[in-house]
Amino acid sequence: MMQDVDMIIKNGTVLTMDSKNSLFENGFLCVKGDTIAHIGDRFIEQFNPLKTIDAKGGLILPGLVNAHTHAAMSLFRGLADDLPLMEWLNGYIFPVESQMDADFVYAGTLLAIAEMILSGTTTFCDMYLFEEEVAKAAKRTGMRCLVGEVIYDFPSPNYGPVENAIEYSEGLIRKWRDDPIVSIAVEPHSPYTCSPKLLTMANELALKYEVPLIIHVAETKTEVNEIMGKYGKTPIEHLDSLKILGPHLIADHCVCIEPSDITTMAIHGVKVVHNPESNMKLAAGIAPVPEMLAAGLIVGLGTDGCASNNNLDLFMEMDMAAKIHKVHSMDPTVMDAFSVLQMATIGGATVLGLEDITGSLEVGKKADIIVIDTYQPHLVPMYNPFSHLVYAANGNDVRHTIINGRLIMEDRSLLTLDLNEVIANAEGKAVKVRSWISNGPHIKNENGQTHA
Amino acid sequence: MMQDVDMIIKNGTVLTMDSKNSLFENGFLCVKGDTIAHIGDRFIEQFNPLKTIDAKGGLILPGLVNAHTHAAMSLFRGLADDLPLMEWLNGYIFPVESQMDADFVYAGTLLAIAEMILSGTTTFCDMYLFEEEVAKAAKRTGMRCLVGEVIYDFPSPNYGPVENAIEYSEGLIRKWRDDPIVSIAVEPHSPYTCSPKLLTMANELALKYEVPLIIHVAETKTEVNEIMGKYGKTPIEHLDSLKILGPHLIADHCVCIEPSDITTMAIHGVKVVHNPESNMKLAAGIAPVPEMLAAGLIVGLGTDGCASNNNLDLFMEMDMAAKIHKVHSMDPTVMDAFSVLQMATIGGATVLGLEDITGSLEVGKKADIIVIDTYQPHLVPMYNPFSHLVYAANGNDVRHTIINGRLIMEDRSLLTLDLNEVIANAEGKAVKVRSWISNGPHIKNENGQTHA
Repeated sequence: MMQDVDMIIKNGTVLTMDSKNSLFENGFLCVKGDTIAHIGDRFIEQFNPLKTIDAKGGLILPGLVNAHTHAAMSLFRGLADDLPLMEWLNGYIFPVESQMDADFVYAGTLLAIAEMILSGTTTFCDMYLFEEEVAKAAKRTGMRCLVGEVIYDFPSPNYGPVENAIEYSEGLIRKWRDDPIVSIAVEPHSPYTCSPKLLTMANELALKYEVPLIIHVAETKTEVNEIMGKYGKTPIEHLDSLKILGPHLIADHCVCIEPSDITTMAIHGVKVVHNPESNMKLAAGIAPVPEMLAAGLIVGLGTDGCASNNNLDLFMEMDMAAKIHKVHSMDPTVMDAFSVLQMATIGGATVLGLEDITGSLEVGKKADIIVIDTYQPHLVPMYNPFSHLVYAANGNDVRHTIINGRLIMEDRSLLTLDLNEVIANAEGKAVKVRSWISNGPHIKNENGQTHA
Repeated sequence: MMQDVDMIIKNGTVLTMDSKNSLFENGFLCVKGDTIAHIGDRFIEQFNPLKTIDAKGGLILPGLVNAHTHAAMSLFRGLADDLPLMEWLNGYIFPVESQMDADFVYAGTLLAIAEMILSGTTTFCDMYLFEEEVAKAAKRTGMRCLVGEVIYDFPSPNYGPVENAIEYSEGLIRKWRDDPIVSIAVEPHSPYTCSPKLLTMANELALKYEVPLIIHVAETKTEVNEIMGKYGKTPIEHLDSLKILGPHLIADHCVCIEPSDITTMAIHGVKVVHNPESNMKLAAGIAPVPEMLAAGLIVGLGTDGCASNNNLDLFMEMDMAAKIHKVHSMDPTVMDAFSVLQMATIGGATVLGLEDITGSLEVGKKADIIVIDTYQPHLVPMYNPFSHLVYAANGNDVRHTIINGRLIMEDRSLLTLDLNEVIANAEGKAVKVRSWISNGPHIKNENGQTHA
């Protein structure tokens, strides 16, 4: 008997990334509504689809999860690189961020979403200002996300004085709580920019609504020294003393942490997001990810913002994650390709608390799916698909993207946004950014010439 | 008065990478025969071209130079990863290499050339077996290269016993010496696989014909220990004692070298090729590149072979080169984007002794040019083109490629090879590779299942 389905994706190797790592060569997958209805490699003729996607012998896998980014920073990409951290922050990033408004964040987030869809990301976790705009941009384009307004002790260009931070965050939660693709988190910036009081209030809000609490932790040695000087504790010990550690806490970076911190985090079930490219580019250090994984911590992968990466391509991030730990430990067997792909899919989904919804291809889960075109010189022949995805592919190899059952990109055409309009708006915002920087780098060479 | 030219590439920012780093916004470039005839930003109407390439606001720059690879290893990509070095070599690479023949190398090299052209490389330097086939494949496809047969103390599946090594290399040099795009080098494999006698003979051959001598040096700690044990010298000291060091010597890797080695290399003008991705993936270590540059050494960038990278995309290699040294030195200012792009263009060309021919866009040099499509979400807005090329772009962003004045890729279509045929031949060779490996990994998951 024929079964009606909305979509079939066929003629590819299905890498489910489920707990048994089920894999179907010459497999197919059926979508009904927003949900995965069937996965298999036989009896495709029993399904009657409205729409068929031909993977043409490529790979069918869960959409990637970018577990930590600042999407609208796409508008600052390449504005300032190769600088000492404080010069980068104080000379460029903070001055331009202080000028931003809601429209700026909306334009930057749409640009970032376009890039993320084109490079295979179907879920992102955002921390930034004017986060209501991020939720709107994601909603408009059909992108899955977990977002939250960054809060800290300084006045915000969005919600104003710190006294408004919690109320603003609560408003976001209440507004979006029932949305099928947008989820909200509470996001205090870091232990060094938030008072113990603000951290405690943020934690209480997260617990009240059962949403994640997201924070940058131990990104740099400078931060650790500052917290040690102020509280006599490591950042993790400090959060522990505030009773904030728990399975609802997502700790971004965790570069400069001690073995004892890892044990503490494991005891409390804290989730971690690893951002190797940003940590390398800013010379922050190398997070002890193999050690965290060995301790049983769940680790996701993030690109961080475009100003410190400088792209949102999780394929490049996977490659970096696999290689940096091999050379750092002088052991080529750590961070194998399969483990790294796990980190970028089901690992990231679990970190964000979305593991029942996305991160793997399983019947009953939401249909967040990407199709990789492997008929290309750099992906032929294929002895091991996990190796190719981590070490050889890049974001441009993604051919089709489905999010929550909806076809978002087909044959690399974006179906839910007007790319020309997104790019034109981004160029318009860049004119403002240049005007905000007094000594703008614009196009300038080593000798300060703009042409010969 | 009108001047006839063969090609104009217009409507882009021309990054010349010449010694003054001349840069032309809204510039254009004329090609006559195999040569760059004009570069500028005014009076384009004075040139009458047979063919016009519209860069559409993108970037026009010298083709990239992959200064060290083993092209035909494209057929081993993903065959074995995440393994200890000796298990990888003895269990996979050596067994399959022992079975190779000329046809295998030809097919693998064509596959690699397709990938290199598609990702912006216009010159590559190869070291492998059956190198006559590499020269033929490059010649057929119009790719510029410096190639040489790898020689060592063991019998070769190509030229037979070591006694034939020098004669075979000399034959290659004599056959190809006048070719406009193929050059030949003498390529002893390494200090640990070549006797002092073989190294000396190889050096004499290189000096006789004034061609480069290319060798892997100090790639791993194991190698250094072996040479120290055998000769009581570091690999560089060993080569120095054989009087092999000189400006004609290209030393690949140089991962495990001492400050005194760097001084010695600088005194003799030895050229270096840095292969960060391979060194990281094999957990060999991190070459002291900032120190080598500070000592005045000329350093190029290479991908190494696909079995240890696993691609030939120099854009990813540039990104890795910039980031690994920042985090290794904990200094975000080292290996800035411009310096890294230099390494991948004029630096690599100088290493290969081709600096009068390629590596920068200058009137009178050969026309080796790539055009980058920047109208994409991950490259908009653009504050600094060097930053975008190193930190944000990838090989798929290359739109057009010209080598030696010949249009090799237009709108990502390869004009000098049949991609379907190249891929079909590669798939055919992969069937053989699988049969050569007793415990082939093929498509196999962590649990050894091939499907659920």
